[in-house]
Amino acid sequence: MNAKLQWLRNKMSSLNLQGLIISNPINIRYLTNIDAEGVLLLTRKENIYITDGRYIEHVHSILTLFDEIIVYDINDVSKDDYENFFLFCENVGFEEYDVSYAKYKEYICKYKIHNLVETEHIIEKQRMIKDEEEISQIQKACEITDNCFSYLLDYIKPGMTEKQIANEIEEYYRQRTDGLSFETIVASGENTSKPHAVPTDRVIQKQDIITIDMGCKYQGYCSDMTRTIFVGSVPEYVKPVYDLVLKNQKQTAEQMKDGESTRLLTKMVENDFKLNGYDLIHSLGHGVGMEIHEAPYISYKSDAALKENMIVTNEPGIYLPGKFGVRIEDTVQITKFGCINLTNSEKNYIII
Amino acid sequence: MNAKLQWLRNKMSSLNLQGLIISNPINIRYLTNIDAEGVLLLTRKENIYITDGRYIEHVHSILTLFDEIIVYDINDVSKDDYENFFLFCENVGFEEYDVSYAKYKEYICKYKIHNLVETEHIIEKQRMIKDEEEISQIQKACEITDNCFSYLLDYIKPGMTEKQIANEIEEYYRQRTDGLSFETIVASGENTSKPHAVPTDRVIQKQDIITIDMGCKYQGYCSDMTRTIFVGSVPEYVKPVYDLVLKNQKQTAEQMKDGESTRLLTKMVENDFKLNGYDLIHSLGHGVGMEIHEAPYISYKSDAALKENMIVTNEPGIYLPGKFGVRIEDTVQITKFGCINLTNSEKNYIII
Repeated sequence: MNAKLQWLRNKMSSLNLQGLIISNPINIRYLTNIDAEGVLLLTRKENIYITDGRYIEHVHSILTLFDEIIVYDINDVSKDDYENFFLFCENVGFEEYDVSYAKYKEYICKYKIHNLVETEHIIEKQRMIKDEEEISQIQKACEITDNCFSYLLDYIKPGMTEKQIANEIEEYYRQRTDGLSFETIVASGENTSKPHAVPTDRVIQKQDIITIDMGCKYQGYCSDMTRTIFVGSVPEYVKPVYDLVLKNQKQTAEQMKDGESTRLLTKMVENDFKLNGYDLIHSLGHGVGMEIHEAPYISYKSDAALKENMIVTNEPGIYLPGKFGVRIEDTVQITKFGCINLTNSEKNYIII
Repeated sequence: MNAKLQWLRNKMSSLNLQGLIISNPINIRYLTNIDAEGVLLLTRKENIYITDGRYIEHVHSILTLFDEIIVYDINDVSKDDYENFFLFCENVGFEEYDVSYAKYKEYICKYKIHNLVETEHIIEKQRMIKDEEEISQIQKACEITDNCFSYLLDYIKPGMTEKQIANEIEEYYRQRTDGLSFETIVASGENTSKPHAVPTDRVIQKQDIITIDMGCKYQGYCSDMTRTIFVGSVPEYVKPVYDLVLKNQKQTAEQMKDGESTRLLTKMVENDFKLNGYDLIHSLGHGVGMEIHEAPYISYKSDAALKENMIVTNEPGIYLPGKFGVRIEDTVQITKFGCINLTNSEKNYIII
């Protein structure tokens, strides 16, 4: 059995779970490499993956004997099979954050489960800590993102539209990776005041401010980086805001290390922003892995502690509605004594 | 108040619901045009949309006074506010297929709801029947898909990879639409035996069979079409399978009309396939609208009836593992007396 499934079975023992239903497709891919639609059952003795005709061939091509996973076509699973999977199981775990209320009721009925037990993100918590292979894939995704950004600094010219730049980024990634890790943000002028701006047909002007938030997927793992750049020169009224964001981005990077409180990190940035008359209106960061946004979340609402080999973003931003916004973001790896920037593009004033 | 929200309020009255929590983002967009992260509450007297700082500006730019929707920043909603929203509501509906079990428990606690009631896809059921504007957007998406397919017939040449063709489709759509409605399938040779094949680096050969399943989004609405085409000539061993699929695709189109049973439609294809020694391993079709797959589902498991102005796919397919597969799919509009093909590309042997 592979190491991740073995870890999970040990975890189940410690939680007194005799069975487990895993339905989150990302968690299934994490545990098995299967990228399909289906459900993974860990029963007393077996690992079972139930899928449908569309995926059977793909699943068989992924799995090896070593995985010890039995694959069923959903059309071949009888009512009795369902009732037998968790027979004599006192407690069966499920993923209460992924399973809809309707599905929850269906599970109880279909599998005849006595105690269907919430498992509080056990797999997601494990996914927060990346192993060597995962880190190297994220490093690669970040490296390609840095290269793409360098390429953009030559490419972007006044007269282009936001959409055109976003398309160029997508094209760049498509040739080198599995594609985008999220919809690229290219926002210019006033549009930069929207943290989640969607690229528009707005034409880049001389003297514009441009925010680019971009990332790709490399072998299933994501990168995430934002830079705010300038056409021609940096307007005087933007400088104090840019400087404040950059100062806090750097200070956060200096603080990030194993054991550091995510709430404290956020509070420090919030306080410095408030002191200068601004607000931090979104999280300071989030985990990055198979998903672009995953645990841990770095915000005043979370009270997690950073741990070695977590990979997270560091992305303070200030947004002045109707005027402009500035965000600077890196993907970083947490270590025992600090953090390593995995995205390394320039952060001082970038003028094109 | 807009017509869709007004319809929903009438529906709530008939179901004895004094409040409703809508969390499915597609349903929210359908009702309000808001494309963001948040929750829509229909309380006794008000329509309330709660979102966060990232979307406030966007939401305000979409809504007009006519919508009668009050927008809250989630950070400004107090514990008391939550408890007051559904005060004196006997029954509050929620979307049990979209709301996780964890969220369900959170709702009860946060809103202090006595009866949180399942609503059985009320909005999705309404979404099945398209209005004039929706139909015209899907027509446009289908027209662009036909044009893209014509373009491809000139573009595809032996020596290209599946990925290269898929990228060309994406590029074509990106220049003319909101983008893909799903990940394009370009499968060649043996890969055509996988209904959900992902484009690979396999090089198109002379004498290849190629399945292309493609669709785009136009102003939020999807198209979906599949054609199986041939390089050079149609191999003799493929012809009986192709002919059988095409015959059933055409017969299904002739049967589809208001009142027709989805199960019966499927059974007829299944029986004819069985008679010839093959199986129908996936649904015969599905609704198309804001989502690429939505109700109604045309399969032996569903016992819905088609209705006027539903838009669905008609997509029989046969797959012979390790050998090849054939699927032919159109998007069609159901009318009182038949159906109208919205995708109109050639279906007889297409040889490039």
